[in-house]
Amino acid sequence: MSSLHIYNSLTRNKDLFEPLMPGVVSMYVCGPTVYGHSHLGHAKSYVSFDVVVRWLRHLGFKVRYVQNITDVGHLTDDADEGEDKIQRQASKEMVDPMEIAQAYTRSYFEDMDRLGVLRPNIAPTATGHIPEQIAIIERLIDKGHAYESNGNIYFSVESFPGYGKLSGRTDQAAVQSGGRVEQRSDKRSPSDFALWKRAEPGHIMKWPSPWGVGYPGWHVECSAMAMKYLGETIDIHGGGMENKFPHHDCEIAQAEAATGKPFVRFWMHNNMVTVDGVKMGKSLGNFITLKELFGTFDPMVIRFFILQSHYRSPLDFSNAAIKASQSGLEKLHETARRLLETRPGSGTLDVGSFVRKTEEALNDDFNTPVAISVIFEFAKALNGALDRNEGLSADAAAEAMAYLETFAGKVLGILRSREELEAGEAGDGGETLADVISVVLELRKDARARKDFAMSDAIRDLLLAKGIELKDTREGTTWTKKRG
Amino acid sequence: MSSLHIYNSLTRNKDLFEPLMPGVVSMYVCGPTVYGHSHLGHAKSYVSFDVVVRWLRHLGFKVRYVQNITDVGHLTDDADEGEDKIQRQASKEMVDPMEIAQAYTRSYFEDMDRLGVLRPNIAPTATGHIPEQIAIIERLIDKGHAYESNGNIYFSVESFPGYGKLSGRTDQAAVQSGGRVEQRSDKRSPSDFALWKRAEPGHIMKWPSPWGVGYPGWHVECSAMAMKYLGETIDIHGGGMENKFPHHDCEIAQAEAATGKPFVRFWMHNNMVTVDGVKMGKSLGNFITLKELFGTFDPMVIRFFILQSHYRSPLDFSNAAIKASQSGLEKLHETARRLLETRPGSGTLDVGSFVRKTEEALNDDFNTPVAISVIFEFAKALNGALDRNEGLSADAAAEAMAYLETFAGKVLGILRSREELEAGEAGDGGETLADVISVVLELRKDARARKDFAMSDAIRDLLLAKGIELKDTREGTTWTKKRG
Repeated sequence: MSSLHIYNSLTRNKDLFEPLMPGVVSMYVCGPTVYGHSHLGHAKSYVSFDVVVRWLRHLGFKVRYVQNITDVGHLTDDADEGEDKIQRQASKEMVDPMEIAQAYTRSYFEDMDRLGVLRPNIAPTATGHIPEQIAIIERLIDKGHAYESNGNIYFSVESFPGYGKLSGRTDQAAVQSGGRVEQRSDKRSPSDFALWKRAEPGHIMKWPSPWGVGYPGWHVECSAMAMKYLGETIDIHGGGMENKFPHHDCEIAQAEAATGKPFVRFWMHNNMVTVDGVKMGKSLGNFITLKELFGTFDPMVIRFFILQSHYRSPLDFSNAAIKASQSGLEKLHETARRLLETRPGSGTLDVGSFVRKTEEALNDDFNTPVAISVIFEFAKALNGALDRNEGLSADAAAEAMAYLETFAGKVLGILRSREELEAGEAGDGGETLADVISVVLELRKDARARKDFAMSDAIRDLLLAKGIELKDTREGTTWTKKRG
Repeated sequence: MSSLHIYNSLTRNKDLFEPLMPGVVSMYVCGPTVYGHSHLGHAKSYVSFDVVVRWLRHLGFKVRYVQNITDVGHLTDDADEGEDKIQRQASKEMVDPMEIAQAYTRSYFEDMDRLGVLRPNIAPTATGHIPEQIAIIERLIDKGHAYESNGNIYFSVESFPGYGKLSGRTDQAAVQSGGRVEQRSDKRSPSDFALWKRAEPGHIMKWPSPWGVGYPGWHVECSAMAMKYLGETIDIHGGGMENKFPHHDCEIAQAEAATGKPFVRFWMHNNMVTVDGVKMGKSLGNFITLKELFGTFDPMVIRFFILQSHYRSPLDFSNAAIKASQSGLEKLHETARRLLETRPGSGTLDVGSFVRKTEEALNDDFNTPVAISVIFEFAKALNGALDRNEGLSADAAAEAMAYLETFAGKVLGILRSREELEAGEAGDGGETLADVISVVLELRKDARARKDFAMSDAIRDLLLAKGIELKDTREGTTWTKKRG
C-alpha cells in the first residue's frame, strides 16, 4: 500500500490513490490526432504521463495503459464545423487519408521512442473501432440520451444533468462555438454535441451505420475505446487541460449516460506549452516540431527539461532554458560516470534519506521538479564523498548507483544506460568514430615519417585488437571494422 | 514505357506488364499475422516484394503499395478449425489480444526497417476494417454467393464456377481439411469456406454483425481491404506460394463474385525457406527469428543473401551460405569505398553496358540474382580500371558511383549510404568509439611516460578538434564528447 496522492481535476483535490481492483491500475490518456508531426505540447503531455505510468509500476501496480490514436479527421473547428484535418492534409499531399494518418502515427511513435516514452499497452485507432462507437451511440439513443436529426446523431445535454461537472462550464453553447452562439438548425439545443455525422459529398473517411453513411463525432471514440479495453469505470484518465471542455466533459456524459456508472475516478490534466512566453501556434510563427528540436538538442535533454517543471504548470520553452537543462543533465552524467569508475574506499553515504525524499516527492502528485532537485542534492553529496580520501566503500557505491539507476533511470528516464555511461556518450554513429580514427592514423603517419616503425606497428596492432583493420594502399591508409 | 515482364501465377506465363491506369500501379501484398516475431520466411517475402516496388518506382510508376496486418486471430488449422493464434498467445502472456497484436506489429516493422524494406503506403489492420468486411459479405449474400448457417456465413463454392482457377486445385474439401474430408454439419458443401464465424463463448476478439456477434473468416479481410484502398481491379497481388490455395483462390472468389469484375491482373508468388534443406518449423527445432539472426549477422547481409536467389526459387538457409554472402557484400563495399576515395585520373569505363544488363535482368521478372552478378562483374571491371595507372576520369568515376548507388543502393537496397561508406562502417554506437579512444589514450600515456609532452599535448588538441575533450583526474584520464 503506497501513500500516493494524485491531484484529481474532478474533485479539485489531492486525493489518496487506490485503484478499483487491488494491485491493478487502468489508465487512459487521449493520444494525438495524426495529421502532422508532433511538437513540444505533445512531448509535455506524454512525457508527464509516462512518468505517472513508470511510478505506478515502480510502486508495484500492474498498469494497463491505453492511449488512443485519432486517425479519423476531426473538424478543424472545435464547434463541429470546419474541415477534417486529416483529409485536408491528404489533399495537400495528394494521398489517401489513411496514408497520412499512418505516416504521422509512425512519426509520433518515433519521436516518443526518442523521448524515452514507453509505448502504451494498447494504442487503439479511432478508425479501427467504428463498431464500438456505433454500439455506444445506439445505447445512448435507446436510453433517450441521443437523437437523430438529418443523418446526424446528437447527444442531448439536457438529458444528462451532470454535463459540465469536470470543467464547471455552464455556458456551453457559447464556449462550443468559440463565442458565437450559433443555432444549428438540426440540434435541439445549441449545447448538444455530435456523436455521428452524416458524410457530406467528397468526405473520404466514412462508414455505413444504422443512420446512413457517415463518421463519428470528435468525442465518442475515447469513451468507446477506454471502456472496451479498461471497463466501464476506469482509474485514471489523462489529457491536456485545454481539453477539459468540451472533450472530457463529453466523454463523461457519453460513458455515464450509457452505463449509469461513474466513468473516471481520477482525472489528470497537464498544462500547456508557451514559447518565449507566448502560446505556440502555427500562425504565430513560433511553431517547432520535435524533429526540428531534436536536430539541435538531445531528446533526453528535452525530456529532462519537461520534467523540471510540474505537469500541472505551464512549460515555457526558450533556448536559454533548454541550454540550462542540457548543462544540468551533463553534470548529472559526469557524476554518474565518476561513480562508475571510482575505486572502492571505505567511506559511507546516507543514500536511504535521499530515497525517502525522492519517493515523497513522487508520491505527492508526481512532483518531478522536486524529485529532480533531490537527485541533484544527492549528486552534490556524492561528489563530496568521492572527493574525500576514504572515498566510498563498494557497498555504499553500489547503493548510490542503485539509487541513481532507479530514480533517475527507471522512474524518470533521464539517465543513460550503464553501457552508454561507460562508452562516454551515446554513440552517434560513425562520424566521431571516423574522426578519432583519423587522429590515430595521423599519429601513425607521423611515426612512420620519423621512421618509428615500432610505433607504427604498435598502432596497427592496438587497433586490430579493437576490431579495426588498417589497409595501406596507394591512395593512403583505409580502415574497416571487422565483424565478430 | 518499359519492357517489364512479370511471371503471372494466373496465366503461368511471363507477361508484359502494363498497369490498368497509365503511370500508376496498384499493388497489394498479404502481410503478417502478428502473433509472434518475424522469421526468415517473412523476410524472403517482404524483401522480394520490396524490390518489386522499388523497381516499379525506378521505372517511373507511381505505386500505391498496400500491405495488410492480420491482427485478428486466425484459427490455427487452415480448415477453419483449431484455436485463434493471437488469442492463444494472449492467454500465454496474460494480456489482451490487442496488446499482443500491437506488440508484434511493432516487432515486425522494426525487423523490416532493419532489412531496408520500405513501409507500404498503407498498412491496414483486419480489426480496423470490420465494417468493410461485413459490407462485402452482405453483398455476397444478396447476390446469392453466400449463406448463413447457425450464425456462420459461408461462401458457396458451387455459385462461383471459377473457384480454384489460380491454384488449379479441384479437390478442395480434401485440401481444406488437410486430407480429411470432414463434413461440417452447417456447410452446404464441404468446400465452402467461412466468411464470418459466430463467436463461441470465451472468444475475445468479436464484433456485432447482422448475423450476431462474431468475427471474420480468414480470407475476407484481404479482399475487403485491397478493394477499399486500390479499387475493384488491382494490378498486382503478391504473397507466399503456400497461400495460393485456399487463401488466394478464396480472395478471388469473394472479390469477383461481389463485383463481377476481375480482381487481380498479376498474381506474384514467392517461394519458401528451408533450413539446411529442411522446412523451417517450430516443432522441428530449426526455427529462428529475425531478431536472433540479427544478433549474428548484419540485416543487410540477410537482405543480400535473400536477393541472391530468385523470389520464385526456394531459399535454403545455412550458416555457410550466409557467411559467403557476408564476404561478398563486404567486397562490394570495399570496391565502393575505393571508388569514393580515388583521385581523378584519365581512364574510362563502359558503365552503360552494365546499366543495360542490370535493367534487362530486373525487367525479366525481377531477376535479382542475375542483377547482382552483373553488379559484381561491374565491380571487377571497376577494380581493374582503378588498378591501372590512368585510373578513372572524374566523369567516369561519377558515372560508376551513380550506377552503384542506383542499382545496388536505391533499387536493391544492398549498398550502405555514402556517409556510412565514408565513415568506414555503419556506426555501432559508443563501443568501438570508446575502444579507439582508449587506444589514443594509451598512446598519450606512453608519450607522457617518455616525457614527450609535445606529443601528449598534440594528441589532446587533435582530439579536441574532433569534439572529444580529455580530463586528467586522479583516477585516470576520462573523456567526453562535446556537443556543437
